[in-house]
Amino acid sequence: METGEKKAIGAKNFLYPMPTTLVGAQVNGKPNYLTVAFCGIVQASPPMIAVTLGKMHYTNGGIKENQCFSVNIPSRHMVEVTDYCGIVSGKRIDKSEIFETFYGKLEKAPMIRECPVNLECRLVDTLDLGGASEVFIGEIVESYAEERFLCNEIPDIEKIEPIVFSMYDNNYWGIGERLGKAWSVGKKFGENNNEKKAENNELKEINIAGVIGRK
Amino acid sequence: METGEKKAIGAKNFLYPMPTTLVGAQVNGKPNYLTVAFCGIVQASPPMIAVTLGKMHYTNGGIKENQCFSVNIPSRHMVEVTDYCGIVSGKRIDKSEIFETFYGKLEKAPMIRECPVNLECRLVDTLDLGGASEVFIGEIVESYAEERFLCNEIPDIEKIEPIVFSMYDNNYWGIGERLGKAWSVGKKFGENNNEKKAENNELKEINIAGVIGRK
Repeated sequence: METGEKKAIGAKNFLYPMPTTLVGAQVNGKPNYLTVAFCGIVQASPPMIAVTLGKMHYTNGGIKENQCFSVNIPSRHMVEVTDYCGIVSGKRIDKSEIFETFYGKLEKAPMIRECPVNLECRLVDTLDLGGASEVFIGEIVESYAEERFLCNEIPDIEKIEPIVFSMYDNNYWGIGERLGKAWSVGKKFGENNNEKKAENNELKEINIAGVIGRK
Repeated sequence: METGEKKAIGAKNFLYPMPTTLVGAQVNGKPNYLTVAFCGIVQASPPMIAVTLGKMHYTNGGIKENQCFSVNIPSRHMVEVTDYCGIVSGKRIDKSEIFETFYGKLEKAPMIRECPVNLECRLVDTLDLGGASEVFIGEIVESYAEERFLCNEIPDIEKIEPIVFSMYDNNYWGIGERLGKAWSVGKKFGENNNEKKAENNELKEINIAGVIGRK
């Protein structure tokens, strides 16, 4: 891999890729959905997810009141409505009828039937990191999908067709081609690396033999 | 959007897409890099990122000792070496010479020159959520990239070519085509929705007029 000169480009959230999710909460007795890219897994087991929302958002009160929320994964075919949920606030526009809502075992975390995957979350902690947002940490108590989005009982990314978000240039992207299997493609690198090391060691041995043997 | 029957598919971390990053830390005086998909932005300003690592990992001690770490974004051309860093532990294999390392203003957060984007992070908090991992929250104090990966001073996802990870089926994916502009494509939905509402209202008015006027 060739490299060039690195340039400081500022203290910014340059994480690539970011996900595009719709966070759901029951607010004033109605479902509300907000587009969120600041979202990531924070624990394998029990499974936990962190979502960061600006403190001014309409959704936050509903999460706190009901101690639960949902993370819904929209497909690329839903990119317009997904973006719309990030443009208009629930304070001004009633977003409760945009989607078909369903509920799971927590009963108060509204989920979007149109989204291929839904994560139902129980609020376990709220963090204030000093800025204008707060972090909601949720334990995923159940996940939902239609049979047609599964392969071997697991959501299939090629069937879901989720949306990637790139911040600062504000673009949505699809998922591209498969690059390889995790915990697998790296073995090739390891073998090549070992071969290289073995070659280097052989060269060293030849050099040492040359130096020692011929003295 | 047609919908079918939702099925409970278990309490699992079904977030799509997940990023693929290499987390760097100085451990026992040497750079070490670990592949991490549990990673997300947790604050806009000051910018903060959360990375979750199993407690048994070699990297954790280095993050705590030096109070800093890095998040490096590998490109798809680095998929083999990226996967390799997740297969072998720094406890057993010295990963300090796999990449060309550089340092920034924190001086003790090793970063990977080969990665198109690097986030240099100061540790601000460590969370234990009760499982076998811990969450490191870092303030991004500086970011780095080569000029060739930028467009208008911002990293360009098409030039970076980052790697998407899908958990449970363990696959790496590239980035696909551009789907549209955020805070923009949703306006179309809003307009159509308003038109639909206006039509509905008109229909309602006609109906009301019909009901009232002809009674």
